[in-house]
Order: sequence, then structure tokens, then C-alpha cells
Amino acid sequence: MKATLLLTLSALVAGSVHAHLWPIPQTVSLGEGTAFVARNLVLQTNCRHDALQDTIRRYTRLLALGLFQPPTKYNVTSAPTPTTTLRRVTVTVNTCTNVTHPALGDDESYTLRVGEPAANTSANIEAASVWGALRGIETLSQLTYNNLNGDLVVGQLPVSISDKPAYPHRGLLLDTARNFFPVDDIRRTLDAMAYNKFNVFHWHIVDAQSWPVESRFLPALAIRGAYSAAMTYSHDDVAGIIEYARLRGIRVIPEFDMPGHTSVVSNVLPEIMTCVNSQPRWDLDAAEPPSGQLNPLLPRTYEFVEAVVNEYAPLFPDQFFHTGSDEVNTHCWETTPSIRQYLNSTGLTSSDLLATFVNTTQGYLAANRKTGMIWEEAILDFNLTLPQDSVVQVWRSAENVQKVVAKGHRVLANSYEYWYLDCGHGGWLGNNPTGNSWCDPFKHWQRVYSYDPVANITSSAARDLVIGGDVCLWTEQVDTTNLDRTLWPRAAAAAEVLWSGKDANGQPRSAKEALVRIQEQRFRLVSRGIMAEPLQPLWCARNPGMCDLPPPS
Amino acid sequence: MKATLLLTLSALVAGSVHAHLWPIPQTVSLGEGTAFVARNLVLQTNCRHDALQDTIRRYTRLLALGLFQPPTKYNVTSAPTPTTTLRRVTVTVNTCTNVTHPALGDDESYTLRVGEPAANTSANIEAASVWGALRGIETLSQLTYNNLNGDLVVGQLPVSISDKPAYPHRGLLLDTARNFFPVDDIRRTLDAMAYNKFNVFHWHIVDAQSWPVESRFLPALAIRGAYSAAMTYSHDDVAGIIEYARLRGIRVIPEFDMPGHTSVVSNVLPEIMTCVNSQPRWDLDAAEPPSGQLNPLLPRTYEFVEAVVNEYAPLFPDQFFHTGSDEVNTHCWETTPSIRQYLNSTGLTSSDLLATFVNTTQGYLAANRKTGMIWEEAILDFNLTLPQDSVVQVWRSAENVQKVVAKGHRVLANSYEYWYLDCGHGGWLGNNPTGNSWCDPFKHWQRVYSYDPVANITSSAARDLVIGGDVCLWTEQVDTTNLDRTLWPRAAAAAEVLWSGKDANGQPRSAKEALVRIQEQRFRLVSRGIMAEPLQPLWCARNPGMCDLPPPS
Repeated sequence: MKATLLLTLSALVAGSVHAHLWPIPQTVSLGEGTAFVARNLVLQTNCRHDALQDTIRRYTRLLALGLFQPPTKYNVTSAPTPTTTLRRVTVTVNTCTNVTHPALGDDESYTLRVGEPAANTSANIEAASVWGALRGIETLSQLTYNNLNGDLVVGQLPVSISDKPAYPHRGLLLDTARNFFPVDDIRRTLDAMAYNKFNVFHWHIVDAQSWPVESRFLPALAIRGAYSAAMTYSHDDVAGIIEYARLRGIRVIPEFDMPGHTSVVSNVLPEIMTCVNSQPRWDLDAAEPPSGQLNPLLPRTYEFVEAVVNEYAPLFPDQFFHTGSDEVNTHCWETTPSIRQYLNSTGLTSSDLLATFVNTTQGYLAANRKTGMIWEEAILDFNLTLPQDSVVQVWRSAENVQKVVAKGHRVLANSYEYWYLDCGHGGWLGNNPTGNSWCDPFKHWQRVYSYDPVANITSSAARDLVIGGDVCLWTEQVDTTNLDRTLWPRAAAAAEVLWSGKDANGQPRSAKEALVRIQEQRFRLVSRGIMAEPLQPLWCARNPGMCDLPPPS
Repeated sequence: MKATLLLTLSALVAGSVHAHLWPIPQTVSLGEGTAFVARNLVLQTNCRHDALQDTIRRYTRLLALGLFQPPTKYNVTSAPTPTTTLRRVTVTVNTCTNVTHPALGDDESYTLRVGEPAANTSANIEAASVWGALRGIETLSQLTYNNLNGDLVVGQLPVSISDKPAYPHRGLLLDTARNFFPVDDIRRTLDAMAYNKFNVFHWHIVDAQSWPVESRFLPALAIRGAYSAAMTYSHDDVAGIIEYARLRGIRVIPEFDMPGHTSVVSNVLPEIMTCVNSQPRWDLDAAEPPSGQLNPLLPRTYEFVEAVVNEYAPLFPDQFFHTGSDEVNTHCWETTPSIRQYLNSTGLTSSDLLATFVNTTQGYLAANRKTGMIWEEAILDFNLTLPQDSVVQVWRSAENVQKVVAKGHRVLANSYEYWYLDCGHGGWLGNNPTGNSWCDPFKHWQRVYSYDPVANITSSAARDLVIGGDVCLWTEQVDTTNLDRTLWPRAAAAAEVLWSGKDANGQPRSAKEALVRIQEQRFRLVSRGIMAEPLQPLWCARNPGMCDLPPPS
């Protein structure tokens, strides 16, 4: 009996001593002790911040449910019965301010210690800020599991963890315009983000196909531009989502993509639009149907843009406001007679038009005391000059990260070749006999995991400009029916890159080692109501290392 | 107003006059009239067969719910208000026998007529058999929809449809062994199958990883081989699933895959197994881990196989019983010392061993009055002689269909390159840096739709041997979290090939035309509780033809 136990434990340990945790902490020391966790476990804190109080309430409930059974424990036929019980967790926040909202660069570090199993086994989380305390509580929750007898147990005592994120911006982008997602879907996504230590919800809220958010300055934008009245986020819905995120230490950055990706505006203001829904050659005017771009020559256009910024900038408390500017199509503008005539008569180019548009938009942001975020094309294809504090989001290649850094801008790095989770589902255009898509193939979790936001960037000053990235879900082929499965657990692979860093001890982290942990994280997410898809047959999840690619002959 | 209406109707009609129906009937004539459908619509029939009575109950409820709103109707701003109401549907079965179970080759033809809108608007379904009546009722249900005022409407009157299937075996294979699916998942899948006129559930019930079905002759098979007690189908569960399928005109064919894909048997009878869970070079002995094959030399092995057939053949009433025999690994047997010695001393080969195994198994089937189904390798790779009435299932290429037909066997044709819905999700093996899989890429619905089971088979006698095929879902990366969205709506594309035939008027059916209909079918499935994934942004579903691949320059 004892021999079996030792064998099983060492088999588990062989995979990793950190088998339970995702993303993996920066430094961690684990033992082999276990204790029961009291169903009425008390988490006490010195800090009355509402996000921490709410988090303690949520995790107290989550732990009391105790639903998570690690697949790797299934084959452990005779685990030792704990002799002690963990009854109290102390959460100490060193600077318990009344800062309401999380912000870029907040200190999210924490330490977590759980003592040896003993009559007075205790757990202590210490964090510089409230936001670090939230991260520490999630880590603690991941040390607990339901053993096969239905008891909640905390394992691998004594535990000593010291942790902090590799990147300050750890984002997930969701497009709610190609298809709509009910508020509950977004809430559930925010829950799953917190379970993976993401801290930014990049809300790509409108696009060419729909305008699903209430507008007060121009109500018809949503009335005629949302897919239906039921498929509209009211200001209250938005505020509720921001609050839900805030209580989980997650910032919400909205994106209002302009001047391209705006076909939907033509429902209300066709007079400020160009090349609306060109058919059948929409491809000349846009990256996808329906085409349509704001006309950069009309005062009415700028009134519209200013009104958009003025309405939504105050609604979203975050410092940053994303104005898109990706995939601007010069053919569209240059074949619009009034614009062509203007360009001919002035000798200006489409780049000049975009420069005017973007500079003017940045002015509206400045008037609202917002810092701009923008996709890479503005700076790399059109060579625009942006305010130096602008954050540039790179999606087309790792190389482009280097180019933007060379211009001294902060960067979000998320190459589509690694972090576009919608890819690999074939093309969504009709009459497409091959069924192929530009961004095939599917981004396997190991592919997601292998992404290095700072690839080939060597100087530490340049690396510091890369503040993180967003794992992205564009939703041409996703709606409420398949949201969770498309996001999870693959987004978790990006979360570990962003929190733990791509490398450990100067080497890329091992996907073989990570598999055991991301499997557990997948089953943990399912136990928490997130419909994350399976990575392998359950047999493989229960038998780590036995479903690996064989070594070469 | 009138001009707008005509334009809109003609825009709809331009896509297809059969916009609502999936799979498309063999001959169909539709008008432009509409009538309300009474919420208390009566379906009356001359036939008291329980499957028909149950179907009438189910569809009466479904129609009363009236949840389906076709996306293409959204832009019709002023549809005419019907002036009459359909209150009664008459279902006439010409041969109302008391045959309980559907069987291969049953007459599933039907005609459906709905008159001009008039005070006495009536609908009539006439079918040779009960099973045809079920298909006709599904078609009738697809003519109905919820208009935007919340009324249930039947459209395109008068309707005259004459319909029958192109292939008698229209199957869907679900693997319940790599990962487990609760009974409710299977029921929901059977519902969705009926909505698409599938008529065979190929239940790949056990495999190397688990044995999720109760065994009475050897209870430990499930007790130790199922993933858990809760993840086990009892005999009662199986009988309930068969009954649920029967009431929908769906046959259930079980597959007990032998002699390969049997590693799980080693939990109970290691003495009849060879090469169990070879590590790390499982690839030498099996197509996927864990390896393991029945030992074809031992009397105890045959006792086991006979007991399996004798237990499960009576449980499944269908004429056919699938015994797998795919991916038999000769290295496994040839490196097992006792087998190697036997082969050396007798001069026999692994093919001879498999021949003995398969022939003996066929004898057990015959004793149970079952007709065998078997995967193609037995006949194509090992050149075995099978009973002439055996059905051979081809999965590796279209070419192999021709080869099997040349041997005079009936064939199920389902090349993995078209009809394996699990493909394209990357590899599931651990430590696989590329993340690739042998069966990438993803099988897009248009790819599924382009499959021709009788490709390059010209003689009509040879074509008749191709009795149909199974769209297949192997579940290494699928479980209850992502079942619906992996199956649907792509499986529906296969359903139309099998029911309507690949060609119309001697030409392959147009995927451009089909897109409007499969989109509607997708939304219809969602309205009926099947979480089918979206194919496009909702904007595209509402604007047919506007999201097509542009024509070449």
C-alpha cells in the first residue's frame, strides 16, 4: 500500500511540483502535506476595499462548493487522510487605499504562505495592493480540490509563493459586433479571465456589421444599428459590466474603430460615409463585407467622431480609449469622387487624410483626458506621428513589434499567427469552394503558449515598452453558442505567457510540463461553470505523459 | 410600399425558391402565399403506430412554441398579413403496419401538399410507411416560422413536394469512449439528427480509453473501464436511447471495435491482451495511446469476443452490428513472443491471424442473426474474405470506395478528408510543438457539402452498392462542453448530401445556393435547443449573397 502511494506521488511530482497552479507563480515552493479546508473557511482582511470584500465573498462561496476534482487525482487510490483543517486565511494589504479602479501598472504582487499541516494550520496572503490580494486569493483557491471522498482539501503544504506579473497589460479582446453576446456571456468571460489572472477586457464593441451599444447623442445608431433591441448594451449594461470587471481587478478598455469598420453608421448618417456596402467587389474597399469608411473631409464627420468620444469616454473610466484605425482602405477614399477631386486639387494623399483624421481624433481623446490606443497600421503603414504616450497594438507579425518599439511607443503584442483564437475554422465567406481562410490554421494551445511578445527584442529599455498583449476573439463564426469553447482553455495559455513570462530560467517554458497544469486548469474552469473544451481524452488527463508525441525512432 | 415588397420578395427568391428547407426535397413547387398556423394545430392520421403518434405529439408542441425566426425575414419590413389560418394537417400512411423498428431500405418517401391560402386551407402528408410520414412532418415544420409579430406562419403556399432519400443509410457516428457524453447529449443529438433526416446513429460505444457501457457477463469491464460509475450507460440507458431513436425513425448500430482499440480490456483481462500501453513508443503498436490488442491465439480471447457479441447483439435490435477491426497493428502481434513463435513455427502471417479473428467473430454475429459491418482495412489491407452481405465502411479515401465496390460489397462511404468533423482542431498529443494533426485542416461546411459518396463510380449497379455513409465525430477533443457546436450545422451538410444527393440535374449542388438554407437550418436548430455554431456574422445571415467571396478581378 505504502509503495503504491509513493510511486503514485512521485509519478505526479515527476511532471511538476507545481501541478496545481495556472498561471504558474514566479517562485514557488511546495511540500507534500495536506489539510482539510473547513467548509466555513474564513478569509479575513485588514482592508475594507469593496473589490476585496466582494472577492472574499465570491471565493468563500466557490470554496464551499468545492466542485473541482483534479483528473490526475483519479488514479491515486490511497491518498493519506489529512489530520488537520485549515479554518482561516489572513489577507493583508499593505496599502489599502480607496482607489476604486485598477489601472495600468498597479502593483499586483503578492506572497502566499500556507503552513505545515498542524492544529493551527494557517494561510497568509500579503499584497502591496488590493489587486495583488485578488491574485493571491485565486492562487490559494487553486491549491484546493475536492478529493474523491467529497472533502475539500488543500494540498502540497507547506506552500510558499512569491508572485507578480511579467506584463502589466494582460488582455482579452472580445468582438461584440460581428455577432452579439448577452451580458451574461461577458460576465462569465470576466469570471474566467480572473481565474487566469487577466486584467484587461478589450471590448471591441462596434464594427461594420452592428452597433450594439446605446447611443444618447444619436439613439438611432443602436436602434437601427444593433441587431435588435434585445441585442443592445444600454449604458447601464456597460456600467454593470465595468463594475463586474472592477470587482475582479479587470480594466475595461473600449474600442470604437474608426474611420474604417464603420459601415453600420450608414444606417443613420449615410452622408458622412464613403463606399458603403460595395457589391460584389467589396474586397476593393474593405477587408470584409460590408465595406464603408467615414469621409475624412466633412465637418459633419468630425462632429460625429467627437460626439462618439464625448459620449463613451466618460462611460468607461479607464485611462485608455482605443480608436481602432486598422485596415483603412485607400481605394475606398480615392474612388469617392469628392475625395478624389480634393486629393487631385491639393496634391495631398490618403495618408494625409488619415493623419488629419487620427490627429483630430487624438485631440478629442485629449480633451477627455484619455490616452489613445490604436492598431499598428496607423504608424507602420501610414507613418503617422502619434502622441508619444499612445499605445500601439500590433497584430500582423512579431517583426512589427520591433518596428513600433523602435519608434519609442508602448506596444501591445498579439500576432494573429499565435493569439487569434477564431482562426482555423475555415473561411466564413459564402461561395468559397475551398473553405479556406487567411488566418488558418487553428491556433492550438501549444501554439498560443509558444508566443513571445518580446521576441528578438534584446535591450531592456525596448522590452519595457512591450506592456503586454491581448489574446483576441473576433466573432464572425462565434456567438453565444460557442463562446466558452472557443476561448477556453486556449486563452489560458496566453494568460500564462503574460503573467508568468514566456521563459523560465532563460529557457522557454516546456509545453510538456505545462500540459498537466493546463489540463487541470481546464477541468477547474469547467467546475466553475466555464464550458472550456477538452484538450485530450479523459484517459490522457488522468495519465499525464502517456499521451505525448513519441520520441523519434 | 408595394414596390418595396416586390423587390424584397424577389431578392429572397433570387437565392432560391426553396429557401426554407433542409435537406432540400427531390421535387418541390412553392408559391408566395402565407397563412397563419393555429397554435392548436391538429395533426390527424389514419395510423396508430406509436412512432407516428409520438412524432405528432412532439411536433405539435414544437409548432406551438413557434420560436424560429428566419434571419432572412428580418429585412422584410412589410410582409402581407395572412388572411387565413391552417388548422389541420392530415397524415396518411398507406401501409400502416405494426413494424416496430426502422430498418435499412425502408420506404421513407412522402408527398406534402399545402393548398392556396383559403378559408379551408389544408395540409396533407402522404407516405408509404410510418417512417416517410415522420420525414414529411419535419418538412412541414420547416415551412413554418415565427414572423416578426410573434405569429406562427406557414409560407410559400401552395406547396407541392414529392420527396425520398438518395441513400438508405444516412448516419452519424459518435464516439463515446475517448470522452463520455451523458444520455441527454445523445438524446439531443438524436433530435438534431431527425431535424436533418438522418436515420442511423452509429454508436462507437467503446474504445481503448474507456468502456462506458454496463456489462452483465463481465461487470468489471465497466466498473473498471468506464471513466466513473456516473459515466456509464446501463442496459436501461441503452434501451432508452434506442427507443428515443426509434420514435424518430433512427436506427442504432453499435460498434464494438476489435481486436485493436481494446486497451481498456486489460483492466480486467490482461491475459488476453498484447502490447498494452506501450510507452513511450506507443506509436509502434497503435494509432493512438493507449496501445493494446486482443491476442488472437487464445481460446479465452474468443470466449470474450463471443460473450461481447452475445451480450450486446440482443440489446441492439438493428440487423447490423459493427465489429470495427480498423487500424489493426501487426507490429504489436509480431513482437509478442508467444505470437511471434507461433508465426515462426507455422509460417502463418498476421493477416492469417486477423482472418481467423474476423471469421470467428462473423460466426458469432451469424449465430445472433446479425449482419456484420466492418472498417475497410480488413478487406483492403488484409485482403480478408467476408460474408458477402457484410457492409464495409470506408474512411481513408474516395478511391477505396471504388475498390470495395469492385469486390461486390455494400459500402458506407465517409472519407475522413470530408466527413471527420473532429479534424482541424490541432493535435491532441502532448509535447507536440507544432500542434499539428494528421487530419488537419478543419472540415468546413462547404467541404463537407462537396463530398460525393459515389465519386468516380459510374455503373448503376456499383452505385447501388454504396448505401450511404456516416458523418463522423471522434471525440479526443470533444465532450459535453463542445458537442453541439462541433457537430452542427456541419453535420447537416452531410445530411443533405445523403438525403438529397450530391447532384441536382446532373450538376453538383451549389454551395452558394445552399448557404441561405443551411444558415436558416442553423438558426432553426438553435431555436430547437441545439447549440449549432454560427457560420457568419448575423449581418450576413440576414443579407444573403452580400458576404460571398468576390468574383475574380
